[in-house]
Amino acid sequence: MRLDAQLRGESALIERIAQKAHDLPCAGRVAVMQGIGDDTAVLQTDCQILLWTADMLLEGIHFRLDWIDPHSLGWKSLAVNLSDIAAMGGEPTGALLSMALPPERTGEWLDAFIEGFVECAHAYSTALLGGDTNRAEQVIIDVSVLGVASGRPLLRSGAQPGDWILVTGALGGSRAGLEALRAGDAAGIDLTPHFRPIPRLQAGALARELGATAMMDLSDGLAADLPKLLRASGMGAVVYPAQVPVHPVALHWTQRRSLDPALFAIAGGEDYELLIIAPPDAAQRLLKEIPCQTGVPLSVIGEVITARELWLEHPDGRRESFAVAGWDHFTV
Amino acid sequence: MRLDAQLRGESALIERIAQKAHDLPCAGRVAVMQGIGDDTAVLQTDCQILLWTADMLLEGIHFRLDWIDPHSLGWKSLAVNLSDIAAMGGEPTGALLSMALPPERTGEWLDAFIEGFVECAHAYSTALLGGDTNRAEQVIIDVSVLGVASGRPLLRSGAQPGDWILVTGALGGSRAGLEALRAGDAAGIDLTPHFRPIPRLQAGALARELGATAMMDLSDGLAADLPKLLRASGMGAVVYPAQVPVHPVALHWTQRRSLDPALFAIAGGEDYELLIIAPPDAAQRLLKEIPCQTGVPLSVIGEVITARELWLEHPDGRRESFAVAGWDHFTV
Repeated sequence: MRLDAQLRGESALIERIAQKAHDLPCAGRVAVMQGIGDDTAVLQTDCQILLWTADMLLEGIHFRLDWIDPHSLGWKSLAVNLSDIAAMGGEPTGALLSMALPPERTGEWLDAFIEGFVECAHAYSTALLGGDTNRAEQVIIDVSVLGVASGRPLLRSGAQPGDWILVTGALGGSRAGLEALRAGDAAGIDLTPHFRPIPRLQAGALARELGATAMMDLSDGLAADLPKLLRASGMGAVVYPAQVPVHPVALHWTQRRSLDPALFAIAGGEDYELLIIAPPDAAQRLLKEIPCQTGVPLSVIGEVITARELWLEHPDGRRESFAVAGWDHFTV
Repeated sequence: MRLDAQLRGESALIERIAQKAHDLPCAGRVAVMQGIGDDTAVLQTDCQILLWTADMLLEGIHFRLDWIDPHSLGWKSLAVNLSDIAAMGGEPTGALLSMALPPERTGEWLDAFIEGFVECAHAYSTALLGGDTNRAEQVIIDVSVLGVASGRPLLRSGAQPGDWILVTGALGGSRAGLEALRAGDAAGIDLTPHFRPIPRLQAGALARELGATAMMDLSDGLAADLPKLLRASGMGAVVYPAQVPVHPVALHWTQRRSLDPALFAIAGGEDYELLIIAPPDAAQRLLKEIPCQTGVPLSVIGEVITARELWLEHPDGRRESFAVAGWDHFTV
């Protein structure tokens, strides 16, 4: 498909906001290296590059309290933000936690939530520094994370023709859990990938050091996120579905439902794996070092092309237009 | 009243979160100077002191869309956060805006909201750098602001016996607007103080430079906020109600309703004026320089005492216990 056709819904909303925010000055001896439109904002101070991101999780939209336990929700609220820091090749420093809660969630439920949040914070050396608490009818969570990059962060806009497209881990496990919950058919389905994503911080930092040219994290699914990266880079791509790593939970679920596992994994959603773009020589270094140094698998799934188009290429050489829908909150 | 009696509701909730967050490590060559419990978190990097804060505004809790226009709401969403930066004596650099919106608010309403936000951002040299957009049944706004301090920021914990207690501007104007709206009796009442608070950034920076010892912004009203500052400092205070500056809108409203204007202003809420603590000599410099350099009035309203008690002292020398309720989201 043509990449321009993707510009709709949530992306269009963000572009409207970005237009109005254009050219706002920034005081305090701080320069904006990257504003709206990447995994994090990037600020250059006198001595440091700061990475800054926020993500909102809403009851009824992003989670249901009869499905997810508070400890996992606490973990996930922080992990999805740390994943954005990972996608820039950075290191987190601290978090702010803004919450609105119904009064009945301010006791044991909140304690378990905070314990999950703090467990994730401990695992990735992130301080909980403040935030806001409010009363509401439903649980509302907004987490902001500040990180640092020890070199130039990896934006979405660096992809070049001939670069390889790689992903960490495996895709579709989270979506399989969500669909099983929605269908009331979650017995025997491992919900861990959906409830407790793992931010790929070490892999992201290594990818930056070893010569990747662009990166983002897969929060809305490869089918929705890859076009965003390509649009930021002004490029297109060919993706090989046979090489897309399918999560075991997605294999299990697609077998149960007689679905195509690769297409299911490509559509994905909430994978929080890294989408990494690198020239072939750097990609080969990454394929050796990331699994070896971090234990995280890495797969080549496609190649960047100059034409601003997106294709799936099957093992028999057949090409089809890439139009598997990802998530978009403002598109029905 | 005894200050310990104040520890309830939202404050108790924050203390529970803070206990669990205690001792979390912070990576990336960044040290935590102040975590949960002040107007902003304070981070010391190799070359800079960073100030970081977030505030959530919820439809039905903090605002009603049939009362406030979107332009004012956009202004206010940023201004309340800038007020926290002002309260540390700092300078804002950038903001993240996380929103959840019903689909019918994504057109003209959103444009006007963003225009109000950007107007405030322009006025105080703050870049809009990113955030998150989501769909929800009601409007949910969470803004995070990052600032810098060019010297040691003014915490809540620096008050000493004999220090004077000062406030910028005048109090009660915002609460008068809110009460008039609630009563359906807002004709002839100026709603500007309620809808478009002014962050006291210049006054805050001057107070820090000229020797103030503690500071915070008045978001929940003097009656609720002064005890927080005193608790953080381990001090008490005497407040002179006759010297509390009452906002003209509060005077108008209390006349209409035959209420005591000073007590109304002390209870306040959403004033976003600065509560400044300074030794007498520094206070005298502030009383001269802040009005002269910034045009913002400054008044002495009381004195810090060692006993951990809080008194109102009337012009006839009569003292009464200070127990006017402020706002607390989790206390009925």
